[in-house]
Amino acid sequence: MNQEYPSTLLERAVKEFSKLPGIGRKTATRLVLHLLRKKEEEVEGFSSAIITLKREAKYCKECHSISDTDICPICANPLRDHSLICVVENIQDVMAVENTMQFRGVYHVLGGVISPMDGVSPSDLHINSLIERVAKGEVKEIILALSSTMEGDTTNFYIYRKLQQYDVKLSVIARGISIGDELEYTDEVTLGSSIINRRPFTGKTL
Amino acid sequence: MNQEYPSTLLERAVKEFSKLPGIGRKTATRLVLHLLRKKEEEVEGFSSAIITLKREAKYCKECHSISDTDICPICANPLRDHSLICVVENIQDVMAVENTMQFRGVYHVLGGVISPMDGVSPSDLHINSLIERVAKGEVKEIILALSSTMEGDTTNFYIYRKLQQYDVKLSVIARGISIGDELEYTDEVTLGSSIINRRPFTGKTL
Repeated sequence: MNQEYPSTLLERAVKEFSKLPGIGRKTATRLVLHLLRKKEEEVEGFSSAIITLKREAKYCKECHSISDTDICPICANPLRDHSLICVVENIQDVMAVENTMQFRGVYHVLGGVISPMDGVSPSDLHINSLIERVAKGEVKEIILALSSTMEGDTTNFYIYRKLQQYDVKLSVIARGISIGDELEYTDEVTLGSSIINRRPFTGKTL
Repeated sequence: MNQEYPSTLLERAVKEFSKLPGIGRKTATRLVLHLLRKKEEEVEGFSSAIITLKREAKYCKECHSISDTDICPICANPLRDHSLICVVENIQDVMAVENTMQFRGVYHVLGGVISPMDGVSPSDLHINSLIERVAKGEVKEIILALSSTMEGDTTNFYIYRKLQQYDVKLSVIARGISIGDELEYTDEVTLGSSIINRRPFTGKTL
């Protein structure tokens, strides 16, 4: 199967594409040959967009999200509630929460979660700068919105311990059955958690 | 939805990725942010593999398949049957036929099929060079292995007309039910064609 490529340049490009998550050799070949059929300017546009992003991307000095400016538009927005910080793992999560249009505070991007198995320790994450933001005394509430995994829970607990000395409210996003999900197909841990964390019904399910 | 990207560099990279077939904005974002987490050398490797392929790829002077050399390894191989040419649309198809290990002849890559709707006329394809190969008098059989579409059929017919003056056998690959397919789920045109093109049963189904 390794000798099926009639060109080493083609093989190299396919190999690079195959490193991307969810892209196998077959898809990689299709994508590469698609690019090969395009004009040189178009392929240059593709190639340079990627490397330019890597070389020139800036990160917000407040929340560590990607930004074109030193302070990102969310952190720079005076209409956002700066006393409410939502802690997330990565930039995708900022975009995901923004898309809900349910959050008017600001963010803090950790850059991952604590994972001894993958060699990620607290010092690899933007945890200290979160503590510093809290230490300034203007933050009232931290919402922990990390993955519902062992690593996410570990990180939640680590931040909880680090913030104990500060007068700040700490909350986690609700775990429960997804909207549209049927009860019988929900895993028992989630279902159990959603029963323990039941709330008064005031006529609104959402 | 268009303003969800916190960085124009990020948005530009996502836009470029979204142009690839089968890649939507969500997948594009995931791939781009994956690359952003990699080291600069790795991203450079990815980026340069693509543009180098586009700039430096060579095509075989005989069959027009991609190649590192003027004549591709298949065309240069004296053990392949040079009197038997398999005509395909593109490089993927060469790889697909090679993977079957059922073909010991050589190839001819047209670079597409005749499609007036997409503005592809016979002169845009490597049809003349196919005729030239036949005109040399050493080719005994041409196997047409194009897509089973109106455009593929049109191209088959065009080549058939062009080759009528030459003493060369012309064949098309068999259409029929796929191996492993159940009859009741096969479309009626394919099934009808497979009945018309039935062959004597000699104890082997393959």
